Amino acid sequence: MRNIAMVVSYDGTAYSGFQIQPHVRTVQGQLENGIKKLTGETINIIGSGRTDAGVHAYGQVINFITTSVIPVQRWVLALNSRLPKDIVIRSAWEAPLSFHARYSSNQKTYRYSILAQCKPDVFRRHTECFHPKPLNVQAMQTAITYFVGEHDFTSFTALQSTKRSNIRTIYKAYIEYEPNNSKEVGHGRIHLLFTGNGFLYNMIRIMVGTLIRVGEGKLLPCNILHILAAKNRQLAGPLAMAHGLTLWNVVYGAEECLHVK
Amino acid sequence: MRNIAMVVSYDGTAYSGFQIQPHVRTVQGQLENGIKKLTGETINIIGSGRTDAGVHAYGQVINFITTSVIPVQRWVLALNSRLPKDIVIRSAWEAPLSFHARYSSNQKTYRYSILAQCKPDVFRRHTECFHPKPLNVQAMQTAITYFVGEHDFTSFTALQSTKRSNIRTIYKAYIEYEPNNSKEVGHGRIHLLFTGNGFLYNMIRIMVGTLIRVGEGKLLPCNILHILAAKNRQLAGPLAMAHGLTLWNVVYGAEECLHVK
Repeated sequence: MRNIAMVVSYDGTAYSGFQIQPHVRTVQGQLENGIKKLTGETINIIGSGRTDAGVHAYGQVINFITTSVIPVQRWVLALNSRLPKDIVIRSAWEAPLSFHARYSSNQKTYRYSILAQCKPDVFRRHTECFHPKPLNVQAMQTAITYFVGEHDFTSFTALQSTKRSNIRTIYKAYIEYEPNNSKEVGHGRIHLLFTGNGFLYNMIRIMVGTLIRVGEGKLLPCNILHILAAKNRQLAGPLAMAHGLTLWNVVYGAEECLHVK
Repeated sequence: MRNIAMVVSYDGTAYSGFQIQPHVRTVQGQLENGIKKLTGETINIIGSGRTDAGVHAYGQVINFITTSVIPVQRWVLALNSRLPKDIVIRSAWEAPLSFHARYSSNQKTYRYSILAQCKPDVFRRHTECFHPKPLNVQAMQTAITYFVGEHDFTSFTALQSTKRSNIRTIYKAYIEYEPNNSKEVGHGRIHLLFTGNGFLYNMIRIMVGTLIRVGEGKLLPCNILHILAAKNRQLAGPLAMAHGLTLWNVVYGAEECLHVK
């Protein structure tokens, strides 16, 4: 019995999210089908995070237990040839049996991309959220830093969230800004990156929706502190659209990382 | 009567090419439908080039004669809201009545993108041609320069091409190379750019297919000269896949350009 771990990229546009569900197309479903075609086994894969419908992954990590004897270096090509083109295995390694893609993870990074300019970019329309007006990037840069640290994120999660505790730690939160060719202030691509030990349901998308309000001048950067303190979802901004969000990468402890490519 | 010109971007993935044809989805068809919804007119638009099925455009130029009195600055938003999301009008201007998107053009640039690395990039799979092995970029850079100048491109056009003359002039042909993170030689993105006064049917894709052969070491850069001289399609490389190709921009004389944004 072996525990195989993999780094997987996918374009979430055509999927009803990562997690398997009856009657709909999911990333987990495609991966499990691909493995079944390859080894004949019916297995359950574990993903580091269950991305929602329309959300993408650059570095999702999965693992599964198999009795197959296929050498680990052969898995990548063998499985990619049995998957649809919008899912790509980037690497595979044999992990200790104790490795669990979700529970063993130390930190996860998500990236949210916004294009702020008059016209959308047809070639990236599935992976960035289009905002037809300029945004105050400097204000957003100040505001995003208020999320760093251990906080109760009750204001930044869907009301129906069922987690026992809403306290999470964000290690890093920052903006990468690429001005567009016009060089007009506030126009261009704005990537918001969040690294934390875990995120509540819809947490990133509500943080982003709130930061967009700051960029629009409808909230001040320091309002983030008040909204966190209030523990009231009504005070935060709207849920940002799913398609701008990408699970960027997942980090594990040294032992499991040994074989990560 | 006014002559409206526009710069248009489109993701060609879902289209059977630019030119209108019965029973299939075309870019021209969508644009003409969009204008009909906006003005009620049944018009024929002229495109600077008829891109093939699966080929994209960043800066396609179109024009059409209209009796509509909608101010030119309103056309962009008004038409974009009546078009599918994979077609975006970038700008519009009122051109002299003599302006013709195809016949008035002085030069056109096409860009062909190749991703040379072990695994494809899911997010760009519709706009770049995936090559799973490294390519000798330096040899390709030497080879591409042999296309510059006035040549008979008979070797680089589809056998069924019906153009009267196969002589064309390429003003500029070069490679933009973005090595990937691995920094392994020959891995990364290779963009091939060709600027000319016009291109024969399939000419760019056959030049690219031949340059890929050079990158693979199956042809020498100087072989390009012999293939040009031979005027024999059989000697050139295969037709590169359509989805790596993008009509990048079109240049007009000073008069028509006056209003180009």
